[in-house]
Amino acid sequence: MKIALSQINTKTADFKRNCATIKDCLSKTNSDVLNVFPELSLSGSPLRDLTFYENLFSEGMNYAEELCEEKRDFIFGLPIKEGEKAYNALAFVKNGELQALSTKRNLTDFDRGFCVGNGLELIEYNGKSIAFGFFEDLEEFAKTSKKADLVICSANTVFEISKQQEILRKVQPIVRKLACPLVVVNRCGAEGRFVFNGGSFVLQANGNISEQLSFFEEEIKVVETENLHNYAQKALSKVEKLHDAAVLGIRDYFNKNGIKKAVIGLSGGIDSALVVVLAVEALGKENVVGVLLPSEYSTSHSVSDAKASAENLQIEHYIIPIKESFNSVLSAVQPVFAGLPFGLAEENMQSRIRLSILMGIANKIGAGLLNTTNKSETAVGYGTLYGDTSGGIGVIGDMYKTEVWELSRWINRNGEIIPENSITKAPSAELRPDQKDTDSLPDYDVLDRILYLHLEQRKSKSEIVSEGFDEQIVEKVLRLVRINEWKRHQVAPSLKVSSMTFGIDRIMPIS
Amino acid sequence: MKIALSQINTKTADFKRNCATIKDCLSKTNSDVLNVFPELSLSGSPLRDLTFYENLFSEGMNYAEELCEEKRDFIFGLPIKEGEKAYNALAFVKNGELQALSTKRNLTDFDRGFCVGNGLELIEYNGKSIAFGFFEDLEEFAKTSKKADLVICSANTVFEISKQQEILRKVQPIVRKLACPLVVVNRCGAEGRFVFNGGSFVLQANGNISEQLSFFEEEIKVVETENLHNYAQKALSKVEKLHDAAVLGIRDYFNKNGIKKAVIGLSGGIDSALVVVLAVEALGKENVVGVLLPSEYSTSHSVSDAKASAENLQIEHYIIPIKESFNSVLSAVQPVFAGLPFGLAEENMQSRIRLSILMGIANKIGAGLLNTTNKSETAVGYGTLYGDTSGGIGVIGDMYKTEVWELSRWINRNGEIIPENSITKAPSAELRPDQKDTDSLPDYDVLDRILYLHLEQRKSKSEIVSEGFDEQIVEKVLRLVRINEWKRHQVAPSLKVSSMTFGIDRIMPIS
Repeated sequence: MKIALSQINTKTADFKRNCATIKDCLSKTNSDVLNVFPELSLSGSPLRDLTFYENLFSEGMNYAEELCEEKRDFIFGLPIKEGEKAYNALAFVKNGELQALSTKRNLTDFDRGFCVGNGLELIEYNGKSIAFGFFEDLEEFAKTSKKADLVICSANTVFEISKQQEILRKVQPIVRKLACPLVVVNRCGAEGRFVFNGGSFVLQANGNISEQLSFFEEEIKVVETENLHNYAQKALSKVEKLHDAAVLGIRDYFNKNGIKKAVIGLSGGIDSALVVVLAVEALGKENVVGVLLPSEYSTSHSVSDAKASAENLQIEHYIIPIKESFNSVLSAVQPVFAGLPFGLAEENMQSRIRLSILMGIANKIGAGLLNTTNKSETAVGYGTLYGDTSGGIGVIGDMYKTEVWELSRWINRNGEIIPENSITKAPSAELRPDQKDTDSLPDYDVLDRILYLHLEQRKSKSEIVSEGFDEQIVEKVLRLVRINEWKRHQVAPSLKVSSMTFGIDRIMPIS
Repeated sequence: MKIALSQINTKTADFKRNCATIKDCLSKTNSDVLNVFPELSLSGSPLRDLTFYENLFSEGMNYAEELCEEKRDFIFGLPIKEGEKAYNALAFVKNGELQALSTKRNLTDFDRGFCVGNGLELIEYNGKSIAFGFFEDLEEFAKTSKKADLVICSANTVFEISKQQEILRKVQPIVRKLACPLVVVNRCGAEGRFVFNGGSFVLQANGNISEQLSFFEEEIKVVETENLHNYAQKALSKVEKLHDAAVLGIRDYFNKNGIKKAVIGLSGGIDSALVVVLAVEALGKENVVGVLLPSEYSTSHSVSDAKASAENLQIEHYIIPIKESFNSVLSAVQPVFAGLPFGLAEENMQSRIRLSILMGIANKIGAGLLNTTNKSETAVGYGTLYGDTSGGIGVIGDMYKTEVWELSRWINRNGEIIPENSITKAPSAELRPDQKDTDSLPDYDVLDRILYLHLEQRKSKSEIVSEGFDEQIVEKVLRLVRINEWKRHQVAPSLKVSSMTFGIDRIMPIS
């Protein structure tokens, strides 16, 4: 049987666009092929609370009817309503006629508003027994005594750095139990903070991998399920995955929100130097604007490194010193500040003035501001709220500082794109003379390992100390994580790349 | 049987404080009384992802042992672990000995990390059969054939403007079926965005209300369950509830986060004029600092109204014109702005400069910035991100503009506290000459009714139009709600007072 794995990039709630994408896929394959599309391929996903609104379902039905006029064989996803109950559904269509529906049973966080459905459905198709449904319902189906010649699943799996390997490890024994081939079609593309990595695959009845589609891009691939062969699995390295996820995340954020240009503040530090490279890859050099905002505490290398960064990439860039704006705001607050020593208030003020300038420029040219904060900083609150923590989307906010270095070195593997000095120099916020991050934080390699144990592994202080870390440092780091919880409720949303993303996977009380 | 309804104000994860609060309640009642405490009274609540950390449970056990040394009879709540499984539990203690545990079965959004427990438990106590457990599990218990002489529930019910009446309406038939009295002990106090309103109550076997404790404050009340009488229920009006919730919300946010002083930007408009009154009630006039930040587009009445507001309340206040700071930032961005007409970028820039000044002052004096945005503005995106949408906590962000007026008029019921002109004048952002909110928005009474139908009632365009609203206006409002979704991901978190609070009850895709 010929199956087309149609790994498409949909857009949430844009039925018209998604319908056109599906039709385009159908037109690119022969009519003797069963086209399989990802979960919620007609409506896009995540739908979130759109599922509470009536028009989502009526629009879905209208476009489903339009699709069926194609008189083709395909499986596609849409939200449906039966009476008062809403379901996340997959429709099996033959020659434009609805044959069967599978409704999702094992609901996830993305399925708010949907009721628990029936799971995988069995259907006779071209003389074969096919089970089709949602990837999350596969395991439950395998526990029943039902038999099929082929199982087809649609998915909507959110990218996390280690997830694809885990999925394969988990699904291979299930397939061996089912003793039939499995086709899994995942979507690609990004929606807000979520990146969907594609990588749709086919497993043989023995669990061996037979096909794997591209990661992070659209692809249609036709397979003959009676004739599956072993296949050397594509393996992307960790940095390649981080890189591709970030580039796709930026591109789709701007594309799907109808924004063309990005503005980035360039400090000469590694974070902004990395983000601007990723932005140029995602949007093109003609659509990225760099702004250098030196203060009187900026070192000379911070300007020269930032300039080198912009020049290496040949992007439009401006140097806008903030000294006069800072002095002007500082003199405005004299009724309160007079006589008090320079401190954190003045440090933060510089960051907020920079933000006012960056957002002013972004607003003026109709651009989006990219946030350049990393996960280590966000974790310990090392950043100024309404200052450098701001932006439409955070590009590296789910990557630890040590991962930022790793990715930056990889980007420079064939020559300098990111200024070497940005990579090698000691990190500094440069908000007071001779400031270094390590004045108030442990070295990033220690910090990041403690944070990983505390955040990803959810270990408490005593457990982390028992792994050989200094008790006082652990206590300090965990205290910083705790007291900065409130800040993280207002920082820029970041692209999710890890299994523990702030604001998505970790929800903490404010007070 | 004598039951003490111990309606306390706990603090999340502050076992020491909560343990002391519980002991204090025990010391205030005689030893022949069964003291009943709210859900998670020892640990505080919401716990959110703290439930994934080992130390929560070990700390809980340590303090539970300390409590039991009191050798008294009481029911209290704490998170427990049985093997790898965590439960939200209530412990029934007699003379300091644990008699029984009830684990929560009907979990809510606050119970992330907890496993499904067993629901209400039956226990013999002083010759009577008592069912005790969580309020959410009551309905399920009533469906069984189990019988009790008395049912005792602990609760942790979050305040919403119409919830208390709904709860009573729902629970009365359940009690009639159970045919025994019901005691419900709810907590009071606020945690971050959530206000817990108290209002613990006792129902007779016939469903009639017999006791109701205060709303929004701590109280201990001893009842004799064999001797219950009818009771005229306390009824707070809608504005009284909004008022009390906001005052408690501010007070606990500052108290529990260890912040003493609040900074508020005073524009002369109704929103900030209302918030400053509530802040003074919550924190005392000596702890509230008003800052007037007039620009060249500010009308003379905006300064005089804001001054009147500060003077009526006798608070410390400063007048800091932003013209020079604005001009200075504006001249800094000339490399980009030169030759382009004045527009939204310049309007937003004023708001962000104001924010830089307000946060500078707040940082300098160790104060928290109160946000003054209302729900109507947040809904349609009428505000500047990183400008007036900022602040530690939003006080009226879950109140529509028409509710802001309603509450303001009520505050002035015995004389002017809020300047009358702030209430009666046409709302304006004053970011360009002669600007009025109605230049770009419909009248607030129309806007708020459309928003209520769309947000609280989750109606689509056609349903709202069918209720008699102009199609073009509805379309415009719904479009504004939709395209400003991304902004709401970074605005100040607001105290929850409605059933549809942004960021809590309504989660929408960004792109």
